[in-house]
Amino acid sequence: MNSMIKKMNFRESRDLLLSHIVPVASEKLPLDRLFGRILAEDVKAGMNVPHYDRSPLDGYAVRSSDTKSAGRDSPVTLKIIGEIRAGDSPDLIPGSGEAVKILTGAPVPEGADAVIRYEDTKFSEDYVTVCEQLLPDQNIIRAGEDVRAGDVIATRGMHVDLAVVGMLASQGMAEASVHKRLKVAVICTGNEIAEVGTALAGSQIYNSNRHMLAAALARDGYETEYMGCAGDDTEQIAGLLLRALGDHDAVVLTGGVSAGDYDLVPEALERIGADIMVHGVKIKPGMACVYGFYRHKPCIALSGNPASALTNYYCIASSLLKKYSGAADYVPELIRVTVKSNFGKKGGGERILRGSMRIDDGMVCMYPSCEQGNVVISSLRAADLFVIVPEDHGPVKENDVLDGFLI
Amino acid sequence: MNSMIKKMNFRESRDLLLSHIVPVASEKLPLDRLFGRILAEDVKAGMNVPHYDRSPLDGYAVRSSDTKSAGRDSPVTLKIIGEIRAGDSPDLIPGSGEAVKILTGAPVPEGADAVIRYEDTKFSEDYVTVCEQLLPDQNIIRAGEDVRAGDVIATRGMHVDLAVVGMLASQGMAEASVHKRLKVAVICTGNEIAEVGTALAGSQIYNSNRHMLAAALARDGYETEYMGCAGDDTEQIAGLLLRALGDHDAVVLTGGVSAGDYDLVPEALERIGADIMVHGVKIKPGMACVYGFYRHKPCIALSGNPASALTNYYCIASSLLKKYSGAADYVPELIRVTVKSNFGKKGGGERILRGSMRIDDGMVCMYPSCEQGNVVISSLRAADLFVIVPEDHGPVKENDVLDGFLI
Repeated sequence: MNSMIKKMNFRESRDLLLSHIVPVASEKLPLDRLFGRILAEDVKAGMNVPHYDRSPLDGYAVRSSDTKSAGRDSPVTLKIIGEIRAGDSPDLIPGSGEAVKILTGAPVPEGADAVIRYEDTKFSEDYVTVCEQLLPDQNIIRAGEDVRAGDVIATRGMHVDLAVVGMLASQGMAEASVHKRLKVAVICTGNEIAEVGTALAGSQIYNSNRHMLAAALARDGYETEYMGCAGDDTEQIAGLLLRALGDHDAVVLTGGVSAGDYDLVPEALERIGADIMVHGVKIKPGMACVYGFYRHKPCIALSGNPASALTNYYCIASSLLKKYSGAADYVPELIRVTVKSNFGKKGGGERILRGSMRIDDGMVCMYPSCEQGNVVISSLRAADLFVIVPEDHGPVKENDVLDGFLI
Repeated sequence: MNSMIKKMNFRESRDLLLSHIVPVASEKLPLDRLFGRILAEDVKAGMNVPHYDRSPLDGYAVRSSDTKSAGRDSPVTLKIIGEIRAGDSPDLIPGSGEAVKILTGAPVPEGADAVIRYEDTKFSEDYVTVCEQLLPDQNIIRAGEDVRAGDVIATRGMHVDLAVVGMLASQGMAEASVHKRLKVAVICTGNEIAEVGTALAGSQIYNSNRHMLAAALARDGYETEYMGCAGDDTEQIAGLLLRALGDHDAVVLTGGVSAGDYDLVPEALERIGADIMVHGVKIKPGMACVYGFYRHKPCIALSGNPASALTNYYCIASSLLKKYSGAADYVPELIRVTVKSNFGKKGGGERILRGSMRIDDGMVCMYPSCEQGNVVISSLRAADLFVIVPEDHGPVKENDVLDGFLI
């Protein structure tokens, strides 16, 4: 039955799966736990920031009309009637011929419409002398200059970055509603897998996928739990799947997804009643994969080859989990990338090159890792940029410009 | 005394301070806690990966010499003498005229030097028929193709990314030595500061710096603790400083660093015996700042204006803390950036524009936030790219190309 699912390219597979994703529920969290989370609602400013006209510097608040005739040769001297500091609620109102000493962040008093920096004046305890004309509004930050009451300061689906944290704080908001952090279970499969810290027997290999996937999931902001490594046994895989899906939002598996005799993950997914929607994609590396849903929870089964698993993760799974976690920008933007190396593409399908972004004279360039084979973890070293070599594209030559995306 | 410190540009200030920084101590951590940490030692591979010649696919392992005459019209039929799965330790040795069924990841048996994909053959239980010539090494991943024993797989000062996690795991390494995570204390100052969730009186403002700095520090990988907000009182600030420096690696303060009457942080730093090395830098925004050391622990005092504080943080403090935390790449690389907006630069000094990176047709472009004033938190919205407008540069015109760096 699985083999009847038509193989699509990774964008078609991703978009089909995305159409079935509904974001997880939300929770209210205190401000100091919001950074990096995803807003579940639009946030409107309840007040202007600043909420009063304020001075950006230490100086004197004056009536600009008093300085109309002021110049180097025609100084104007004003009487200092008091001082206002940040935090004060002044009831001083400077009249014509008067000034108020004002400190950075302090409210500009009624009557005054300009502030002069104290270094630009001559002053004593009681008088300040001005030798230049001030314009209305000069050196005053007007109420609402940063944010206006009623402005939408952040929108649903936005990552809470430090500016959003700052804007919420400047509104005095002690909490906000964000999507719950995804809890993702990781299951590995394969008789040949040994955990780190143990001794290898025969052709066993160490479990690197467990740790790399946990790192990739953590990097995207999710909690992960490792459920264990199932042998090549459908029953055992199905058991781990059901246990994982009980109290996690999604499950990621590795191994057992290609067409071989011991690729039992699709069987296990069908046994527990998951609805398989994608079985293999036309992409290299990363062709072998199975995607489905179990009661709306994504089941993501990737190759046992680390580079295949991670390539497929960043081409498809990462977008699904981002939408699932409530993010508005879940599909990576395609950018034009200059590839800085030859790559003798083998085979017919669409191919993904992994490498590092470097900016050469303002242009986005990718320096591919030397090895681009399926199993080569080192091909992911410092990889932050994937480039898509189209199906009909010949060997990639240095300085070819292709579409790519940042991971 | 402080006023005698010559004001430098931000690079000179940063480099002077960097020369006094010694990275913090290291600790051994288990593999599943290494992601994002900074390696404190070079890591060498103890074994080849893979550690045996392996098959990348399901098929048949054969002697390539047996297929020399094979073709569409001259099929060669070989006797299947057994099966090898991933994890097996085979003692099968196929002789001439023999083949071994082999599954993905399984070790290639002695005697065989090529593998043919099972889809490319005709096979029964006992015989496999090959219709093409196989070359030596075809479809065999040789031992050490990913990593060779003795290779340096990761170096001191490197961030543990997912490829490093994968490489350590594939070596079976259960732990590694990383630098301790910095513990950074945050202190705010100013009589006018109110905490979120409380009601504002008069011209009080909400404490946004506390939360933004915590977010910036968390983003760079540090633990933070908020020590409280001191009023405009040197004694109180000095008290919080000493408490903070007791069990933290560094302290970041905001407010009280410019030349006004109530800018008491430099006084407090001198009172506790800190060695002040930078007092103000020639940069806008972010000019007001004080940097010093207290028993080798960095004391970083930033402006009370959020945009000034954050701009200064990313121009100077961020590099110091990166070197302090053991990172090898602590100075941001300068890249050429096309600015996509006019900006009527005021004043003479070097100016930093904050904005978002966008890639337009392969070129790195910055779309500056509309407001670039000192106090404007919204200027940091989605900001990930800073552009440096040199001192002698006139107003910035759309499509000017300037140096910048990613934050």
